[in-house]
Amino acid sequence: MKVGIIGVGLIGGSLALSAREHIPDVQLYGSNRSEANLKKSLELGLIDFPLHKQDIKSMDIILLAIPVDIAIIQLVDLLDEVNDNALIIDFGSTKSAICFEVALHSKRGQFLATHPIAGTEYSGPAAALPNLFMNKIQILCETQKTRPDLLEWAQDWFKKIGMNLREMDPLEHDKHIAYVSHLSHISSYMLGKTVIEKEKDQTTIFDMAGSGFASTVRLAKSPPSMWIPIFKQNKDNISETLTEYINNLNQFKTLLETEKFDELYDQIGDINGIRQILEGIAKTKNNN
Amino acid sequence: MKVGIIGVGLIGGSLALSAREHIPDVQLYGSNRSEANLKKSLELGLIDFPLHKQDIKSMDIILLAIPVDIAIIQLVDLLDEVNDNALIIDFGSTKSAICFEVALHSKRGQFLATHPIAGTEYSGPAAALPNLFMNKIQILCETQKTRPDLLEWAQDWFKKIGMNLREMDPLEHDKHIAYVSHLSHISSYMLGKTVIEKEKDQTTIFDMAGSGFASTVRLAKSPPSMWIPIFKQNKDNISETLTEYINNLNQFKTLLETEKFDELYDQIGDINGIRQILEGIAKTKNNN
Repeated sequence: MKVGIIGVGLIGGSLALSAREHIPDVQLYGSNRSEANLKKSLELGLIDFPLHKQDIKSMDIILLAIPVDIAIIQLVDLLDEVNDNALIIDFGSTKSAICFEVALHSKRGQFLATHPIAGTEYSGPAAALPNLFMNKIQILCETQKTRPDLLEWAQDWFKKIGMNLREMDPLEHDKHIAYVSHLSHISSYMLGKTVIEKEKDQTTIFDMAGSGFASTVRLAKSPPSMWIPIFKQNKDNISETLTEYINNLNQFKTLLETEKFDELYDQIGDINGIRQILEGIAKTKNNN
Repeated sequence: MKVGIIGVGLIGGSLALSAREHIPDVQLYGSNRSEANLKKSLELGLIDFPLHKQDIKSMDIILLAIPVDIAIIQLVDLLDEVNDNALIIDFGSTKSAICFEVALHSKRGQFLATHPIAGTEYSGPAAALPNLFMNKIQILCETQKTRPDLLEWAQDWFKKIGMNLREMDPLEHDKHIAYVSHLSHISSYMLGKTVIEKEKDQTTIFDMAGSGFASTVRLAKSPPSMWIPIFKQNKDNISETLTEYINNLNQFKTLLETEKFDELYDQIGDINGIRQILEGIAKTKNNN
């Protein structure tokens, strides 16, 4: 079986490792915008061959793991080119725009829209991990629009690599993911910005920042090439989450300045409930 | 040598473990507001005896590891009671108020104000860790006001448990720590609040939240009993950091809504510089 990976980075590279382990007699082809990263992914043995335009027609599976804006453009071209039994799967962090774009494509049945809740703040093929998807949630959108035999193959492979499957409407996906993922990134970016602007003397940050700051600002290391297209595609939902987040911060600031500490105390007591939610996440994901 | 620990929790319990290892013939006394936690710290062997009021006079060292509001009140009483060669060290996250409170005390020389940049989001004696302070920064304030022989003993012990010492003015400390620690906690609390309010259906959070959300919201598990007193004492500095953080978020929101994605791209590229700063933190702390 020939699998082509467009974008052999953190996600694409980890998919390559999972494909190698769970797809019998797989031949892995890959491409990357960066020549250096393509070379690296060949050296690391993530892929066997570079994926050229003329190879597309012979691929059985194509995995699309590139920034969400380019993914949409490429998906249309790829659907036009693939053979009649190939399946294209995308792994981007937004789902409405890409589903909308190909809704009326004659080969819509050969496409599956997914979002694996997995990743790190690192990127590139060297960041690929063999178990990145183990016990992680894989969200599938509009499965009824994917050809049943192709859908079944994908579901089977995802289960083999340890993922727990959930179906979700693309609009619902984008609304919820704005809260639990996109907003986290913005809060982290802006925290990094605020501290960098204030603490021009970096040694003070070195000396005074502990593991708490490192944890909260970790996502601020994520590259704009991946995140700006996400913000662009999910603009309206993100704008709504930002309004609520900023309102909560302003409310906190007012309670602080007017010394309503009892109220703040109760509020934080309630927020501590996030502990159970996070433990639930760990438990749910590991038990499945 | 008799060491009394007021507040045998995460910090106090970890200090107990470090004292046991590095102070010859140490006898460890401890107290805790919670009877259950006091019992636990005796069971865990963190301390040898409960610390009663009548024991204070015989202590050589007293370690104060309780919420910063109670610490101030207790410090004054303790200074009144201790013998003439005892040293009291506090480990709170704010330093101006406590230094100001005892500035004119006749036994000021028997007090040392410190802030170890170490901790986790957990609390209580069961959260104590033997190597919590290894390779961590320990900030010392107003060392010139501590009696030289007592200061020397403390510095020697801190070095033995692996800490890297820095001196800092208490006002400067509170200003900087608002950015690199207190603001992180508030951004995390408010992120948790925003998500909990929106996602009433917790299974959606379970399914869609990944390690990024868990990391950004980790500090929201921290207890209000510790943090409200910190917010109270460092109100003005924190209010300033919040103003800047909210301004940055509003600016981001405007750039998003007006689709100034190139500007956002450059901004995030700059913020990615936090990676080098964080790596610097790791390197600085491990190489010392």
